[in-house]
Amino acid sequence: MCPKVLVQPENISVEVPAGTSLLKAAVITGIDIKANCGGEGTCGRCMVKLESGSVASGESRTLKKNLRDEGYVLSCQAKVKDEEVSILVPESSRVKTHRVLSAQAKREEEMVANVLLQGYQRQPICRKVRVKLEPPSLVENTADLSRLRLGLKKVLNLPLEDESIRVSITALRTLAEILRESNWDVAVTIAILDSFTEIIRVEPGHIGVTLGVAIDVGTTSNVVYLIDLSTFRIINRQGDYNRQCRYGDDVISRIIYSSVEKTGLKTLQKAATDTINDLIDKAVTEVGYKREDVVQAVIAGNTTMTQLLWGVTPKYIRLEPYIPTFQVVPPVKARQIGLKLHHEAIAVSFPQVASYVGGDIVAGALFTRIAYEDDLTLFIDIGTNGEMVLGNKDFLVSCACSAGPAFEGGGITFGMRATTGAIESVTIDPKNFDVIVETVRGAKAVGICGSGLIDALSALLEAGAIDRAGVFQTGLATNRLREGDESREFVLVWQEESGRDSDIVITEADVKNLLRAKAAIFAGIRTMLQMVEMKIEDVSRIIIAGGFGNYLNIEKSIKIGLLPDIDQERYTFVGNSSVKGACLALLSADAYREAVDLGQKITYIELATGNSFMDEYISAMFLPHTDLDLFPSAGHQA
Amino acid sequence: MCPKVLVQPENISVEVPAGTSLLKAAVITGIDIKANCGGEGTCGRCMVKLESGSVASGESRTLKKNLRDEGYVLSCQAKVKDEEVSILVPESSRVKTHRVLSAQAKREEEMVANVLLQGYQRQPICRKVRVKLEPPSLVENTADLSRLRLGLKKVLNLPLEDESIRVSITALRTLAEILRESNWDVAVTIAILDSFTEIIRVEPGHIGVTLGVAIDVGTTSNVVYLIDLSTFRIINRQGDYNRQCRYGDDVISRIIYSSVEKTGLKTLQKAATDTINDLIDKAVTEVGYKREDVVQAVIAGNTTMTQLLWGVTPKYIRLEPYIPTFQVVPPVKARQIGLKLHHEAIAVSFPQVASYVGGDIVAGALFTRIAYEDDLTLFIDIGTNGEMVLGNKDFLVSCACSAGPAFEGGGITFGMRATTGAIESVTIDPKNFDVIVETVRGAKAVGICGSGLIDALSALLEAGAIDRAGVFQTGLATNRLREGDESREFVLVWQEESGRDSDIVITEADVKNLLRAKAAIFAGIRTMLQMVEMKIEDVSRIIIAGGFGNYLNIEKSIKIGLLPDIDQERYTFVGNSSVKGACLALLSADAYREAVDLGQKITYIELATGNSFMDEYISAMFLPHTDLDLFPSAGHQA
Repeated sequence: MCPKVLVQPENISVEVPAGTSLLKAAVITGIDIKANCGGEGTCGRCMVKLESGSVASGESRTLKKNLRDEGYVLSCQAKVKDEEVSILVPESSRVKTHRVLSAQAKREEEMVANVLLQGYQRQPICRKVRVKLEPPSLVENTADLSRLRLGLKKVLNLPLEDESIRVSITALRTLAEILRESNWDVAVTIAILDSFTEIIRVEPGHIGVTLGVAIDVGTTSNVVYLIDLSTFRIINRQGDYNRQCRYGDDVISRIIYSSVEKTGLKTLQKAATDTINDLIDKAVTEVGYKREDVVQAVIAGNTTMTQLLWGVTPKYIRLEPYIPTFQVVPPVKARQIGLKLHHEAIAVSFPQVASYVGGDIVAGALFTRIAYEDDLTLFIDIGTNGEMVLGNKDFLVSCACSAGPAFEGGGITFGMRATTGAIESVTIDPKNFDVIVETVRGAKAVGICGSGLIDALSALLEAGAIDRAGVFQTGLATNRLREGDESREFVLVWQEESGRDSDIVITEADVKNLLRAKAAIFAGIRTMLQMVEMKIEDVSRIIIAGGFGNYLNIEKSIKIGLLPDIDQERYTFVGNSSVKGACLALLSADAYREAVDLGQKITYIELATGNSFMDEYISAMFLPHTDLDLFPSAGHQA
Repeated sequence: MCPKVLVQPENISVEVPAGTSLLKAAVITGIDIKANCGGEGTCGRCMVKLESGSVASGESRTLKKNLRDEGYVLSCQAKVKDEEVSILVPESSRVKTHRVLSAQAKREEEMVANVLLQGYQRQPICRKVRVKLEPPSLVENTADLSRLRLGLKKVLNLPLEDESIRVSITALRTLAEILRESNWDVAVTIAILDSFTEIIRVEPGHIGVTLGVAIDVGTTSNVVYLIDLSTFRIINRQGDYNRQCRYGDDVISRIIYSSVEKTGLKTLQKAATDTINDLIDKAVTEVGYKREDVVQAVIAGNTTMTQLLWGVTPKYIRLEPYIPTFQVVPPVKARQIGLKLHHEAIAVSFPQVASYVGGDIVAGALFTRIAYEDDLTLFIDIGTNGEMVLGNKDFLVSCACSAGPAFEGGGITFGMRATTGAIESVTIDPKNFDVIVETVRGAKAVGICGSGLIDALSALLEAGAIDRAGVFQTGLATNRLREGDESREFVLVWQEESGRDSDIVITEADVKNLLRAKAAIFAGIRTMLQMVEMKIEDVSRIIIAGGFGNYLNIEKSIKIGLLPDIDQERYTFVGNSSVKGACLALLSADAYREAVDLGQKITYIELATGNSFMDEYISAMFLPHTDLDLFPSAGHQA
């Protein structure tokens, strides 16, 4: 029995081993406490009030005497003893931004948990088991490792003749001492891989946590979710731009950089691992852990990102016949691909389907369980590329079309990501061309993000400012439509109302870029449907994943012909399904295995050849489309 | 079909791929050519005469013009083209010492080959297979790795659904380029391990060799045999003192050093790997290869040496209940234990039986096939420790007794290893005490080695210079027996006849040390026999392995009571059976697997407790023994 910690005012209790810090105990209950110094006892931000019970605590000179007298302790320094304690976490010690995140985390955690419930065992590839052994004697003189293996087999219910338990050299080198120091009662972190089980780490008793990271390596952004593999909770999340961005906006420019520059491949690999390592560092430090506590990483990324991370040239992804180096890649030690976790931590990648349909899409397919439905699902991940999977329990096909970075703000005069000050919604009064914009966090507008661009395009069309070919009209009664430096442009926000030193405009060139982007995606959808001889009416649900998250306006997306004109009820948003799928695979070895199967099951359709993609693309270069019969609900605009 | 190279005057021919150097071709035929510069074309020692055919050769400025005009080329620089050539290897280009070694190599190779024939497939764990693939197309767009896996499965006759082929990250990182450069025709080096097969290296075409090293890590000496894994030949051998020696003579002092000194473990590990790496370097360079050509190492050592090499503390080997950290250890990458071979090279260790019966003994048991005989065999490895295995196809027991370093020259006033100038044979005329000695290579005597010590002891006893308790007698008519500084001593070689600046003597203290050593071994044999309730008469053959090699005089060893008094015909020598067993395991994965089984089958008898070892030891402290009935043939001395 472990001592209990009761956290107030939430009134949540948790049992933790003696020696655990109050900080960790609180974190386990889901309450985020500030720990700017990383639990070093120097910043003084993590103080909590001890309401009952006593704790083992070092000197808290960081804490003022009056606070100490009132019962406050530094939660990172105060260790639980063998008795129950009750603590109050004051508002001042709580991480504010985290509380916002916490709600999101909770929602996402529920989503992940729900999927897990649909048939996966909560049994991560890497997990910790406690093994109690009989000490050796002159008579029972089996070697330490044999003894440990035997104990593990009993705990894991493996047959005694099983020979599949291996040991990492790091664990082997400390084994003798740890077994004896711990009095033959140890916590063993194991990785259960396909062909063998590896002992990654052996610790005395059952101290310490076992953490995993789910990583989405996007071309533009990298996202890391930190998961406690014992409690199955998402305990932190971090995201940042992929530092590879400085070497090119999209996968093609990265591929060129890595192939043409002498150390290009190494530079790009390091840029990605630096980004991810910093995210992991931030994620663990914020909740009082160390990177060495992380024993597993699950990585989902597109094929180019994954190959770059693995240090494998993506050169041939770009050259006909577009062959990736690997689809399924065996687990590696995380350090082999530059990730700084526990020295023997395992890294696994989602499988790639083809050069332009990667592990991120497989992760999305896993998370959305489209391979388990009777009904037909169309899964679309809209980012720099539009990647799609269509299918049900009987078949799965996929394709990719290059939408370009327009929806992510790239190649658009005032384009930006959906961060503070980005215009995310646009309405234009058709009578007087007055514009109302909404921005992320209500800040002064500084640019326009993907959802704002779709809104703008739809509004410009509806107001008659552009025609169906995207050409700006002349002679309109507004000074917003004017000749710009390069082409005609429409002013969305005047300089004086904006957060920058210029008017925020959308140009005719921007409109053309957006047209190309939406045409590529719609043409992809059409071509794929044709190739499996199905119609959009056959599709029961359309799942939208990717950078747009939940911000895409379906109605307006249909209006501009980006998405098919079907009942909006059939659309659902799934956000970043790549990292969610990675969480799933991290929490369940079953789910990971299924992802590997999925990678094989999904058939890739190459749009570059032998189909109608180019015709479809040209037809889709109108608003909403050349064939208005495809857009009955938007028909009135014709 | 590969072009043929005919080597004269031996008239041996070999087929090698175009591009192979004449040096390598000659080496493959077993003819050792000098290549002091390591095949760099700078030392000029490797010249051969081209008798017919032509070769591709760079500029040979190292070679004088008149030699070039006569048709001489540098064999390391001259590459075989697509035609047959005949070359003459002049005496001056041949490695002299190697010709001596070659005879030994040939004999050992035959021994290894003979054992291989007795039921093992010549199929090393690591081997190279050629795989020809169809190039990909837009239609056949499988990933490179999947394509290679499929090709490998066909070559290896694995079922298509087999999922056990993994790939090293090094091979993965160069895969795309090499497949395309080689026009999809590659040589794949694979390691077939228990639970999976790993692609270690992929090379274009079928160039390059695949080498392995069999390593005997002895407490005193390290030995490396270099083996060509395609031709199954031992192509070089090297041996040297283990540089750990400076930290202690025997395993116990090494264990203490590694446990007591702060960086002791690391120091000892580095000392051993430095020794081995230098030996490997020498072995490959001499025959014109590189260390990167070596893809597998098989290591046989006693338990302490193996743990030290693996970086695992041997501390508990010495502390009751004497538990080693591991018996069977999974294969590791050679670099993980500090060996500098190919980056992805595999290192495997022989299993340990117990703390004092290690992988070297298992290797010996494997090599001598004692587990396959109906008849009872006693295998004795005499070194610093005396380790023994007794058994047949039904049972195997083992034990170890600490003989101390006396037989290896340690703790003996003028003791030395069996190198140049070591007295290896001693005769004493019982009438006038004249001494005749023979030394290694007939050089002037500088010391006395193990076999010389046994001879001396036997001769001193026979001449009546010592009594059965090893005490020097007084009043003998010779000035050779005298009072020394510490104790009485007997002069074996006078200073003026010796190769040093003093008389070479054997002291009473030396005699006592030898008595202790021989008593320990004989007591071990007796105790083990008693514990399995057998008699020495039941033993059909006694195999002597270890440092003594073939130099031990059986008759005299029986006379002093070191070895049991049975028919000398029943004794055989096997030399360094540890490295020979390692060769076997290197050449055949079957043999390695059998060694792993053997490690489990051999039961260890702990002499430290619950038996009659101490009584036996005291009884054996006489020459030959207290119980003369045990030595009928030596009975007349009583």
